[in-house]
Amino acid sequence: MPADSVFAAELPWPDYDAKVRDGTVPILIPIGSMEQHGHHMPMHVDVLLPVEFARRVAESIGALVAPPFTYGYKSHQKSGGGNHLPGTTSLDGATLVAALRDVIKEFARHGVRRICLVNGHFENSWFIIEGIDLALRELRWGGIDDVKIVVLSYWDFVDKATIAKLYPDGFPGWEIEHGGVLETSLMLALHPHMVHLERAIEHAPASFPPYDVYPPKPEWTPQSGTLSSPKQASEEKGRILLDVCVRGIVDALRTEFPG
Amino acid sequence: MPADSVFAAELPWPDYDAKVRDGTVPILIPIGSMEQHGHHMPMHVDVLLPVEFARRVAESIGALVAPPFTYGYKSHQKSGGGNHLPGTTSLDGATLVAALRDVIKEFARHGVRRICLVNGHFENSWFIIEGIDLALRELRWGGIDDVKIVVLSYWDFVDKATIAKLYPDGFPGWEIEHGGVLETSLMLALHPHMVHLERAIEHAPASFPPYDVYPPKPEWTPQSGTLSSPKQASEEKGRILLDVCVRGIVDALRTEFPG
Amino acid sequence: MPADSVFAAELPWPDYDAKVRDGTVPILIPIGSMEQHGHHMPMHVDVLLPVEFARRVAESIGALVAPPFTYGYKSHQKSGGGNHLPGTTSLDGATLVAALRDVIKEFARHGVRRICLVNGHFENSWFIIEGIDLALRELRWGGIDDVKIVVLSYWDFVDKATIAKLYPDGFPGWEIEHGGVLETSLMLALHPHMVHLERAIEHAPASFPPYDVYPPKPEWTPQSGTLSSPKQASEEKGRILLDVCVRGIVDALRTEFPG
Amino acid sequence: MPADSVFAAELPWPDYDAKVRDGTVPILIPIGSMEQHGHHMPMHVDVLLPVEFARRVAESIGALVAPPFTYGYKSHQKSGGGNHLPGTTSLDGATLVAALRDVIKEFARHGVRRICLVNGHFENSWFIIEGIDLALRELRWGGIDDVKIVVLSYWDFVDKATIAKLYPDGFPGWEIEHGGVLETSLMLALHPHMVHLERAIEHAPASFPPYDVYPPKPEWTPQSGTLSSPKQASEEKGRILLDVCVRGIVDALRTEFPG
Amino acid sequence: MPADSVFAAELPWPDYDAKVRDGTVPILIPIGSMEQHGHHMPMHVDVLLPVEFARRVAESIGALVAPPFTYGYKSHQKSGGGNHLPGTTSLDGATLVAALRDVIKEFARHGVRRICLVNGHFENSWFIIEGIDLALRELRWGGIDDVKIVVLSYWDFVDKATIAKLYPDGFPGWEIEHGGVLETSLMLALHPHMVHLERAIEHAPASFPPYDVYPPKPEWTPQSGTLSSPKQASEEKGRILLDVCVRGIVDALRTEFPG
Amino acid sequence: MPADSVFAAELPWPDYDAKVRDGTVPILIPIGSMEQHGHHMPMHVDVLLPVEFARRVAESIGALVAPPFTYGYKSHQKSGGGNHLPGTTSLDGATLVAALRDVIKEFARHGVRRICLVNGHFENSWFIIEGIDLALRELRWGGIDDVKIVVLSYWDFVDKATIAKLYPDGFPGWEIEHGGVLETSLMLALHPHMVHLERAIEHAPASFPPYDVYPPKPEWTPQSGTLSSPKQASEEKGRILLDVCVRGIVDALRTEFPG
Repeated sequence: MPADSVFAAELPWPDYDAKVRDGTVPILIPIGSMEQHGHHMPMHVDVLLPVEFARRVAESIGALVAPPFTYGYKSHQKSGGGNHLPGTTSLDGATLVAALRDVIKEFARHGVRRICLVNGHFENSWFIIEGIDLALRELRWGGIDDVKIVVLSYWDFVDKATIAKLYPDGFPGWEIEHGGVLETSLMLALHPHMVHLERAIEHAPASFPPYDVYPPKPEWTPQSGTLSSPKQASEEKGRILLDVCVRGIVDALRTEFPG
Repeated sequence: MPADSVFAAELPWPDYDAKVRDGTVPILIPIGSMEQHGHHMPMHVDVLLPVEFARRVAESIGALVAPPFTYGYKSHQKSGGGNHLPGTTSLDGATLVAALRDVIKEFARHGVRRICLVNGHFENSWFIIEGIDLALRELRWGGIDDVKIVVLSYWDFVDKATIAKLYPDGFPGWEIEHGGVLETSLMLALHPHMVHLERAIEHAPASFPPYDVYPPKPEWTPQSGTLSSPKQASEEKGRILLDVCVRGIVDALRTEFPG
Repeated sequence: MPADSVFAAELPWPDYDAKVRDGTVPILIPIGSMEQHGHHMPMHVDVLLPVEFARRVAESIGALVAPPFTYGYKSHQKSGGGNHLPGTTSLDGATLVAALRDVIKEFARHGVRRICLVNGHFENSWFIIEGIDLALRELRWGGIDDVKIVVLSYWDFVDKATIAKLYPDGFPGWEIEHGGVLETSLMLALHPHMVHLERAIEHAPASFPPYDVYPPKPEWTPQSGTLSSPKQASEEKGRILLDVCVRGIVDALRTEFPG
Repeated sequence: MPADSVFAAELPWPDYDAKVRDGTVPILIPIGSMEQHGHHMPMHVDVLLPVEFARRVAESIGALVAPPFTYGYKSHQKSGGGNHLPGTTSLDGATLVAALRDVIKEFARHGVRRICLVNGHFENSWFIIEGIDLALRELRWGGIDDVKIVVLSYWDFVDKATIAKLYPDGFPGWEIEHGGVLETSLMLALHPHMVHLERAIEHAPASFPPYDVYPPKPEWTPQSGTLSSPKQASEEKGRILLDVCVRGIVDALRTEFPG
Repeated sequence: MPADSVFAAELPWPDYDAKVRDGTVPILIPIGSMEQHGHHMPMHVDVLLPVEFARRVAESIGALVAPPFTYGYKSHQKSGGGNHLPGTTSLDGATLVAALRDVIKEFARHGVRRICLVNGHFENSWFIIEGIDLALRELRWGGIDDVKIVVLSYWDFVDKATIAKLYPDGFPGWEIEHGGVLETSLMLALHPHMVHLERAIEHAPASFPPYDVYPPKPEWTPQSGTLSSPKQASEEKGRILLDVCVRGIVDALRTEFPG
Repeated sequence: MPADSVFAAELPWPDYDAKVRDGTVPILIPIGSMEQHGHHMPMHVDVLLPVEFARRVAESIGALVAPPFTYGYKSHQKSGGGNHLPGTTSLDGATLVAALRDVIKEFARHGVRRICLVNGHFENSWFIIEGIDLALRELRWGGIDDVKIVVLSYWDFVDKATIAKLYPDGFPGWEIEHGGVLETSLMLALHPHMVHLERAIEHAPASFPPYDVYPPKPEWTPQSGTLSSPKQASEEKGRILLDVCVRGIVDALRTEFPG
């Protein structure tokens, strides 16, 4: 029955209102993007993954999940291939900041006092921070000063032991894990019909100099659009990642939103 | 196979790129909201419906559907009950304008030259227009002047004959068709498990004076949040509406995007 | 004697201050545009009419009239012919929103607590709403939460009986009443020397499909720039309209701003 | 006959279009304010005066006058008494900049290539400059690089000989000529029924230290709101001022907009 | 020892914190520009001079000096030669306003309640005022209403007696004192190794009509970029100017920030 | 002789113009902040260091150094201690973006085609990227499409061998190198009189959970404000860092700006 859904927007308003108006139930907002993810995956990976993490975490801690942000900040060449690539569809920084500011303030108006932003797209990170800062400032101007916001990117919950297990040949670093083992394994575990591993292109991890150039230099990005090869991805690795990240996020939110 | 999906974000980028780069394939962008829709329906009705219209139309004319806008402009008391209601989660006008401007420009960068905005939330209408105007202006500054954009709200394709059939006791007008027969019937036809018609509240059509008041006067909005009673909604009416609107939109786009 | 003028800006400040500082006297702000109105009328019809309505209403209820907004939002093809037409001189949405926000806040600083926005240009409607919302928000941040704002477009006060009398051959709808019988009759009653009815062009009511196209398609707008023929306009109809609208607005404001 | 009016908005669009589309006819835009002007004058002095200067100049050189800006930038304590005073109703700087930018671009769209901004409110000056700069920049982006704009404040055309004649006891400087001899004399010559010289308050010229303080110090502004006494104003001085300023502006525009 | 520096940013935070947290110690913010100053002077004159004035004043009254604004508003043709000149590197008005607003609010967050803006670039003046107004407004929204801000341009403290002494042949007016005797003498007294007086170009004071033209007319600005000749500058005049301005500013701040 | 300075603003405009107008000479813009850096260092470390790196690199490759940005984006708790700390004085994201956009466009107007942003404050990174993107977009609108921009943070040029040498007990990671060995050693090598190493507080490296919380939790930041202990800093390490970073940046710019 939808009235029991963890997805806030699947609830009729009286059910939602009953849950949130006293401020104890947290709301999780997935922030994604529409971004190329190689030849073997669709372009909404960064929406699907944080939505699923948010759903699992919400089930576990009794939270709600807000509608996801379906577009995000511009892809960076050294972490997403670059915003010059076909398919990648991005917002200006100010737009993302404003949208997040607005939505946080609206949830606070409903009574929500515990918010968790579940980021699925690396490049969103700093604009999320600015959106939060502006929202909290305006809420204070309006007399609301007890909203607490946790921000996280799910991959930051993968601990070193898991990394060692998943990347036996060495970990390339999260920045170039774009369309690589992490995301592909998660997609294989969650949405296998959307992964075409046979189309994935094997290539050495992308290697960038210690600086950026604008406009981006197309030759720096592998032709596939991925920054490390997804060939070693597997459904099993995906399940391990799901497990470790969900547990980590659940613990984090139990710590920050106790009782 | 996902690579055949009409949903642009379900495609790997090479498939998307192959479809759009010459500019003939239209892209349809559903624009919704998170807004209370009475006791009997969830709060993402205005996302679900335009996404489904867009999907059906895209299947029919060989178009693509972009990720939906999941948040929209503030609910207006006389067309959506008012933005003071719990659950309704809205953007400032400038935010919606900027988001739409950004996304249109990105699709144009990919090569898209035919865009259709499929609106599911009445209050978005004028901010969509402004977003288009700014996008086309900036595209012209960048040397692109051949993008054509169609904007529509699906209910405008319900013709008088259909209205007479669906509202035998008289049509209350689209403005107060908020959570009423139109939307509820469509949801019954498409997502029946999300409709709790037994929880719907019968009430006379909301009646407003010929002016607005701010801050909104809560007593003007029926307690249910709907502006007309959904009790006469039915799956069959939903199918009729689906049919007439899809056909109308398909015809419109065939006219505007020929060949 | 000017110190008795209903026009706020015609008063020396001590007279204005004495009237407004306790908050009971309403102020009416006419919001117009500079927009083509066919071959037979000037381009400030949307300023002249709301100024005159505001003046008559203010005389009747003891209110003041603020200086009008002389420019408005972009003309929409299906309600004003389109913003591509010569002479039409419009603001971006954000500009109109900001100007209205600023002015409302200033009147509130003076002590005004009752504001009525008298709109004369259909396309302004939603940007007026956003301007009000931002103004009330910022006033609340500054500790002022007792400002009440009524918004109206004068034509919404024409009742069905009057419509039947004025449009014996059927009412085309307010949206295409651009430069048609309504506005032309009012101008004939108020500023006959500015109306050149002999230059008006007879044409069938403009007929649009149930969607918009951008950039506008010039062939959709009648060559005259009007959307329905003004040929049936008359001074007498203008007097009837003046009467019914002024009475309606006076009643509305007496209801909303009692005592 | 209105079609011969110098006021652009009094023309039907075909007449306006015929005049402006080849770019030779200049358009003059009066920029005013709603600002207290002492006990003896209304609050739209800064609108009435530039409108009348623009009208006279336009008659003389065959130009058009655009609708005035009825609100302006915040009153400065040392040139207008301060924005804390009752009645003064001002815009944020960004709002005035945006409005002017928009309007200039619209006139350029119509074909206008010669624009003169006739300022009546000292505090507008720098925001006018920024509005012009942004408009010209955006016009260049759109491929229009031949718009020429003259900006002036009418009082800058009063030459030293006239000053000596009008201020036999010494000239206090334009900055504190707020509600003083200049403006009052002009109003006596043009709109005598709006001047209540008997209510004017004699006081020594306001004297300020060589710095500003915010928030303004109310005790720095004379109680009347004027910064120099208007008691020596006269209709005759007004006529002299009108004459010298109109001649000066006409000469300037003939120089800058020849042929 | 740096912990005794008047330059706030040279202090470790505990020393800074100890000084400012009770609000009595004023902070002086120099606002400059990067702007051509003729053939004989560098382009950061408008930074160097207000920094040095601020330093001397701060030493004298026990204040602190904030890091300077190194870029300012666009150069105006009649006061700085025009923003079309090479080397001049300017901000949009909105950028300067926002930067100043942000910085003022941050100092207020630290506890500062007395701020003095020391302007070195004429064109910044009105954008400084707007920045202050926005900062004080937002501080009020946040519950802080006891910040007092003094704004000054150092040259306004040169009294008539000094002017007579420094300009024996007549004073051209501050507006065209761009790269002339005032600035050059001050630089000779403070940074003589940066002044190449032998490269300065003698020319008559720039003479402008009583209006502005945009785009600027290059032929109005002397080829050197200065608006009056610096040839009469001297180190001694610089010392006189330093002395009179520092004394004037010290007196002003002792008056406004007593005890 | 200043006319030979690498600091652009120390040059008279003709010297600057001669260097930059053909586009081959790069300009380096240091981007800093005013931010607490522990008990032992001043608050403009993030300005002093990139200015000095820029100066050395410019000397080496024949480039110019622009005036630094003296304020930066808000301090992040996990990389700078948090923006709630006294002394830290930051800009909103939009302000930094706009300032950088404006300045880049101005240098391009002068003819500069090679720009290097030398960042000294981690939190600026993403707003720098957005500023560049907006600047390049607007430059393209204005017909300039050959500007190339390199962005770097100097610490990214410290190679693994150097890290091993400098941090024999293990490298804590750049993120918490706030006021630690890196910055302190560089300051000891460059500005030893500004470092009070005896006041530095020994503490274990700050340890944060894999998420952020807003408002920041003061207890997460060590009382000193540093995130890792600077006690192992030394002048010699500073010289090593200077050497390796300067060489790295010089090589990068020779690669990207050849010939």
